[in-house]
Amino acid sequence: MTSERPVPADEREQAVTDEVVASFDGTADPRLREVMQSLVRHLHSFARDVRLSEREWEAAIEFLTRAGHITDDRRQEFVLLSDVLGLSMLAVAINEPKTPGATEATVFGPFFVDDAPEVALGGDLAGGAPGTPCYVSGQVRSADGTPLGGTRLDVWGADGDGFYDVQYDGNRTAGRGWLRTGPDGTYRFWTVLPTPYPIPHDGPVGELLTASGRGPMRPAHLHFKATAPDHRTLITHIFVAGDPYLDRDAVFGVKNSLVVEADHHNSGRAPDGSLPEGAWASMRFDLVLAPGEDD
Amino acid sequence: MTSERPVPADEREQAVTDEVVASFDGTADPRLREVMQSLVRHLHSFARDVRLSEREWEAAIEFLTRAGHITDDRRQEFVLLSDVLGLSMLAVAINEPKTPGATEATVFGPFFVDDAPEVALGGDLAGGAPGTPCYVSGQVRSADGTPLGGTRLDVWGADGDGFYDVQYDGNRTAGRGWLRTGPDGTYRFWTVLPTPYPIPHDGPVGELLTASGRGPMRPAHLHFKATAPDHRTLITHIFVAGDPYLDRDAVFGVKNSLVVEADHHNSGRAPDGSLPEGAWASMRFDLVLAPGEDD
Repeated sequence: MTSERPVPADEREQAVTDEVVASFDGTADPRLREVMQSLVRHLHSFARDVRLSEREWEAAIEFLTRAGHITDDRRQEFVLLSDVLGLSMLAVAINEPKTPGATEATVFGPFFVDDAPEVALGGDLAGGAPGTPCYVSGQVRSADGTPLGGTRLDVWGADGDGFYDVQYDGNRTAGRGWLRTGPDGTYRFWTVLPTPYPIPHDGPVGELLTASGRGPMRPAHLHFKATAPDHRTLITHIFVAGDPYLDRDAVFGVKNSLVVEADHHNSGRAPDGSLPEGAWASMRFDLVLAPGEDD
Repeated sequence: MTSERPVPADEREQAVTDEVVASFDGTADPRLREVMQSLVRHLHSFARDVRLSEREWEAAIEFLTRAGHITDDRRQEFVLLSDVLGLSMLAVAINEPKTPGATEATVFGPFFVDDAPEVALGGDLAGGAPGTPCYVSGQVRSADGTPLGGTRLDVWGADGDGFYDVQYDGNRTAGRGWLRTGPDGTYRFWTVLPTPYPIPHDGPVGELLTASGRGPMRPAHLHFKATAPDHRTLITHIFVAGDPYLDRDAVFGVKNSLVVEADHHNSGRAPDGSLPEGAWASMRFDLVLAPGEDD
C-alpha cells in the first residue's frame, strides 16, 4: 500500500507529531493530558528544528542512561541536569509567590536530606565540619511585618572545603540541621562559613559543562527552607557578597536580593556572648514569607 | 540590592531563559551549541506554557530516576520513553533517505543485541523459541533495481508468546541472528511467526501509558537491519497483515508499506523443500536500499 505521491518531509514529520499528540487524548486527568501533549509538541519541535540525527538521538539515550546509573540516594544527576539547563530556576520563577516584599526563592539543589537533626535555637549545626565558624542570625516575618515565631528553618550548606556531608564516604551528618524561630521570629545558629564549590562534575552533566566551555562552580551559599503555618514554604539561599562566582553560577541561582555581607572577625566575643577560638564570621539575613498555601 | 520596580513574571522568566542560552555561547563545537541552545529554548517554552509546578518538576525528576534505575544491559527504559513519546519515529522520519522507492524505515527498538549468531542462508534462527515456524524470504536490491548480494541482514523478533529472548531469565539466544544475501540478493531463513506483544510496562513508562489511557501493545512484527556497502543502513520491521494493533502501535512504528501478508499452511512442503512438522507460515518481503552513506 505505498502511496502514489511521495509525502513531503514536513508533512510526514507533522503526521508523526499529530498522531502522538492524539494518542494522549484519552488521558483521564486533564492536567496530565495538557502537560504530556505540550511536552510532545515542544520535544518534537526541538528535534525538527535541529534536524536531530540518529547518532545524536543515540547520544541522548546514552547520556540519560549514564545519568540514571550514577544517581543514587546521595547523588542526583537528573537534578543537576535540570539545574545546569536552567529548568530548576525557571520552575522557581514560574512558581514564585507574587507577594510584594517576600524573600526571593532559588533552587532547591540536590543536597537536602530529610532526616537532618534538630538543633536548639542558637545551637551549632556544623557537626564538626571543617571551616570558619559562622554565626548566622535574623528574623522571619510575614509580608505584613508580623514576626513568625515557631517557623521551622531547615539549613544546609557546604563546608570550608566545598563539600556537603553526603559527598563524603560514611554517613556523617554535618553542616545541616533544623531549628525553630523564637516567639519574636528571630533565629540564630552556628555553622561554618560556606565557600564556593563545584557541583559534582565527574558524571555526564560534568562532561556536558566541559564540552560547553562552562564551569561547574557555584558561589558560596547557605541553603534555607522556611516552613510556617498559613505561609508559602520558602526555599532559598543566602549568597556571600564578593564571591568571584556570583556572576557565573553553574545553576543560575543568584539573585541580588539574596547576596549578604559576611563580617569577618579575627577574634573577640560573638553576638551570643561566646568566645570562639580563632577567627569567625557572621551573617545576618531576614526572611519574609508570603501568606498562602503551597500548591 | 532589591530593584525598585517589581519585575513582571514574563520578563523574569525570559531572563532565566536568556541567561541559560547565553551560557552555551562558548561551546566549542558549533553543532553542540546549536542543539543545546535549541533544547533549552524548547524545554523552557514547555515549562512556561504549562506553568509547570514544583510538584510536577519533582515528579519528572522522580520519573527519570526510576527510569534510570530500571535500565540495565537488557532493559532500556529511556528508549521506551522516547518510543512512546513518538520521538524515536520522529527521528526516523527526519533521517529517512529521500531516495524514491527505498524501503521505509521504522523504530530500532530496545531489543537488538550486538552479538547475535550468524546463521547460514536458509538456516533457522528461531533457536528453539516457541511459536509457529515461519519461512521468510525476499530479495535485497538497490534503488535502481540492482540485486545486492552479500548484504548483511540482522533479524530479530519476539516469539510466539510475545517475548524476546532477552526478556527471559538466563542468557538464551533465540529468535535472532544474521545472515548474508546470496549473489542474486535473495535471502531466506526460518524463524517463528511473530505475535503482538506489550512493550515492557512494569516500569515508569508503563505507568505513563496507563495514566494516559494508552495500551502497551505492538502489532506483530519482525525486525530487520540491512547493511550493504555504499548504501544507507536500513532499520525497519515487517508487520503481519490483519494484526488487531496495526492502527494503535504503542510506539507509532507502523507504515502501510511495511505490512506483509503471512501465508498459513496447515501442512505440506516448504519452499526450501523441507517438510515442517505441523503448521507453518511464510512471508515474503523485498528490501530496497538507498545508495549513500550513513550520517
